[in-house]
Amino acid sequence: MSQNIYDRPDFFKAYSENIDRSDADLEDDLAWSRLRKLLPDVKGLDIIDLGCGSGWFCRWAVDQGAKSVLGIDLSQNMLDKADWLSKDNESYGTKIKYQRADLDSLELSDEHTGRYDLAFSSLALHYLANLDKLMSLIHGVLKPGAPFVCNVEHPIYTAPHVPRALLIPETDGQKCWALTDYYKEGERVIDWLAPGLRKQHRTVTAYLECFFRTGFELTSFVEFLPTEEEVLSGKVVEIETLRPLFLFMSLRRRN
Amino acid sequence: MSQNIYDRPDFFKAYSENIDRSDADLEDDLAWSRLRKLLPDVKGLDIIDLGCGSGWFCRWAVDQGAKSVLGIDLSQNMLDKADWLSKDNESYGTKIKYQRADLDSLELSDEHTGRYDLAFSSLALHYLANLDKLMSLIHGVLKPGAPFVCNVEHPIYTAPHVPRALLIPETDGQKCWALTDYYKEGERVIDWLAPGLRKQHRTVTAYLECFFRTGFELTSFVEFLPTEEEVLSGKVVEIETLRPLFLFMSLRRRN
Repeated sequence: MSQNIYDRPDFFKAYSENIDRSDADLEDDLAWSRLRKLLPDVKGLDIIDLGCGSGWFCRWAVDQGAKSVLGIDLSQNMLDKADWLSKDNESYGTKIKYQRADLDSLELSDEHTGRYDLAFSSLALHYLANLDKLMSLIHGVLKPGAPFVCNVEHPIYTAPHVPRALLIPETDGQKCWALTDYYKEGERVIDWLAPGLRKQHRTVTAYLECFFRTGFELTSFVEFLPTEEEVLSGKVVEIETLRPLFLFMSLRRRN
Repeated sequence: MSQNIYDRPDFFKAYSENIDRSDADLEDDLAWSRLRKLLPDVKGLDIIDLGCGSGWFCRWAVDQGAKSVLGIDLSQNMLDKADWLSKDNESYGTKIKYQRADLDSLELSDEHTGRYDLAFSSLALHYLANLDKLMSLIHGVLKPGAPFVCNVEHPIYTAPHVPRALLIPETDGQKCWALTDYYKEGERVIDWLAPGLRKQHRTVTAYLECFFRTGFELTSFVEFLPTEEEVLSGKVVEIETLRPLFLFMSLRRRN
């Protein structure tokens, strides 16, 4: 079973206070600006959101005219927050359905087969031990030819057991990203917001070969790399210039 | 114009003495064992080899029953060596044609259009300033649906201006790959075999988006990662466990 760290009070408190985006902040989010470019026009689409958290994407999709969104998450805390954020908006209430489930063991009934025009997953896949199982499920619930847009923590970022930048000796203070253990896939336990966050390191090869194996074609592959303009404007802190934090991908279910 | 370092005497001497594989060594080559798995059965195929060097792949393909191979390289030294290695074998002489050209500005006549069943390129693309141009050419000379199998130096390896491993302070002698400048594409000048080897750093994103843009689908993406068995057997030196040196890919020309 996946770690349910969002239902651990210390983590949830830190996440709510420091990370969880209010919907209004989306516009300024450099990661979202990349991810959004990979998305089709969602108007009229039936969408499934794997690892929806407090539902920011579900609400955005409804705002853009999506027909329906099924949001799935493991954390009751996050789903309670999603409900609370939907309560004063009739469109959200009628068009979004939330379901609590572990993506590592998710099963969906036959009525979901071939039903969705778009699958979406933001920063969830790198927590899963069994990615093949979820990808096969996504393949089954998408219409043939339909897209799956996702992002994950970049394998260059997840590789080290201890993520860190280092000063390079005998340089004028130049820093590097200390890459270790890239080829060693498996669990990483790090301290982020609270101690003991567990995730799964996979190589880029492992992600892509899993996608190919489960019936997907890769259509976009966008690493989170700063532009020179973002660096010069100070929007990007130094560590983000050393290594890509996220990886955004668009896949297409083969017919 | 591309750097023609293989025709520089100091580099060619060092390369010939230290690197250029005799055909007999192929079997033990860990990189070739990965690349070969991406290749189709070449029996009866018309093949184009971009950056053929001294022709090791051309000869291998003919040994496996290829119908014809066109090998293209910039270096007269390497092509002279290729001719010399073909001279006592009638099959090589009749089935392999070599042509001297810079891959950054290569043009091929109409008779090559849609003619080839397989394109191949080993460790050449990361020297090119204009990858889109070559990829468009490859698209044009392949039959619809035909594969292009290639390898390049991995972007994690080409990123730093000064490639190096570092000891990580406050560990028990653990080393890391000092990743810098990943997001900064462009020329790298390094010392390898001789001073002043020039190559082009591209991100994984840049390679893949170029392939998509020029009409290819990605069908395999294999980073050069050691297996635990190779590490334990001592076949792999420590630096190869810190970062992937090569990236092997198989593409397919869209119809």
